[in-house]
Amino acid sequence: MKKNIAVVLQYEGTRYRGWQVQGNTDRTIQGKLEELVSRMAGTRTEVHGSGRTDAGVHALAQTANFRIDTDMTAAQIMDYMNRFLPGDISVISAREEKEGFHSRLSASAKTYRYRIMTGKIPDVFKRRYTYYHPDALDQSGMREGAELFLGRHDFFAFQDNRRLRKSSVRDIYSVSISENENELILDITGNGFLYHMARIMAGTLIEIGEGKRQPGTIITAFDSGNRQDAGMLAPPEGLFLKEVIYD
Amino acid sequence: MKKNIAVVLQYEGTRYRGWQVQGNTDRTIQGKLEELVSRMAGTRTEVHGSGRTDAGVHALAQTANFRIDTDMTAAQIMDYMNRFLPGDISVISAREEKEGFHSRLSASAKTYRYRIMTGKIPDVFKRRYTYYHPDALDQSGMREGAELFLGRHDFFAFQDNRRLRKSSVRDIYSVSISENENELILDITGNGFLYHMARIMAGTLIEIGEGKRQPGTIITAFDSGNRQDAGMLAPPEGLFLKEVIYD
Repeated sequence: MKKNIAVVLQYEGTRYRGWQVQGNTDRTIQGKLEELVSRMAGTRTEVHGSGRTDAGVHALAQTANFRIDTDMTAAQIMDYMNRFLPGDISVISAREEKEGFHSRLSASAKTYRYRIMTGKIPDVFKRRYTYYHPDALDQSGMREGAELFLGRHDFFAFQDNRRLRKSSVRDIYSVSISENENELILDITGNGFLYHMARIMAGTLIEIGEGKRQPGTIITAFDSGNRQDAGMLAPPEGLFLKEVIYD
Repeated sequence: MKKNIAVVLQYEGTRYRGWQVQGNTDRTIQGKLEELVSRMAGTRTEVHGSGRTDAGVHALAQTANFRIDTDMTAAQIMDYMNRFLPGDISVISAREEKEGFHSRLSASAKTYRYRIMTGKIPDVFKRRYTYYHPDALDQSGMREGAELFLGRHDFFAFQDNRRLRKSSVRDIYSVSISENENELILDITGNGFLYHMARIMAGTLIEIGEGKRQPGTIITAFDSGNRQDAGMLAPPEGLFLKEVIYD
């Protein structure tokens, strides 16, 4: 009887092409994990993530699961993985799940965090983990925009898969904007995120904060479904998958 | 009349061979700065640092100065430098100094910070900026050791220049140990630091914290002048030049 192991991962995305294996597995997070888990299992083993993070995007807590025939406990599997994973990926917790659990399909919500470093002088130690925006941003406008994202909307304009055939309707439960020293932090929680959606939402709020765009254009974009009516794709280095929530 | 410009620098040392130019200037902080300042000045210009940081060591505030014949103000020089410096070096302030000012010779004290990340699971985002030490350290022993460093002592045993001909007597003004989440932070202030001295002091305190060494061995090392009586050379990634103090 195979065990269904769920691991919570932290990673710095800087040197990876993103989560998903793409032929050459060597430069993806999933590829690194499958290589290691397959070695541990003694057989080719797939690792399912809660979602794909793009090239350069980080995770504070990504959840992944895999099925393995082993006597090891979840804690032993975690120790094994941390011994062999590269320094920019670590397993921060591991548990055995029920047979039916799937990291992506079982997830009820996710939180993404977008970090923006403001101020005239960039902090060299934050440059890999924030988007650097020297000019101050108008937070009141951004908060107004954040409010408009709440609830159920068609996010077709806020994603980059032009051939999307499934529903692009998603529920956004909260968008918070907080400040910490020279940093502006956006936390967005929703029931699902389309391709590039978190970064386009962040980019739209940034353009509102720059005064280049009115908050109401968010409604325009919901209505039109035109990518051009939404904001820029904010750079990957500021984005973190912060949490995956399971009921 | 040349201006004497002092700049305060922040840098991440990870990809450099340290401060000091060593033939191939390309991979040193001083080399990067001299290349840029010489271009700005239109003539080969030396940049003096307050001290040499080793390969992999960082700076929160290193002070450097250079002489330049220019109409630019200190603020304009800072802007120019920040436009062309790589992302892991930045100028956080600049001022015009009196003719006689020298970053190293005029400094009255320096503070080094050593960051130790403890805990079973390393934080991937801190791995470049801390020394990872999974096991907990005995802080009471470390504090006892820290006390013994205070005052004027011969640090010959706590440095790695075996051919040192000048005095190895230095004054240590304070050694503080503080905790922040899974991090132990050592701040050491003194009137000067010999080659590797800050890292050997940190390594000695870490070995005391591990219970491998008694605090009193610090006195033994002062008396003997034997490098073997002092602790290990703590790894560079945990060390930051935090401040250079001028009267």
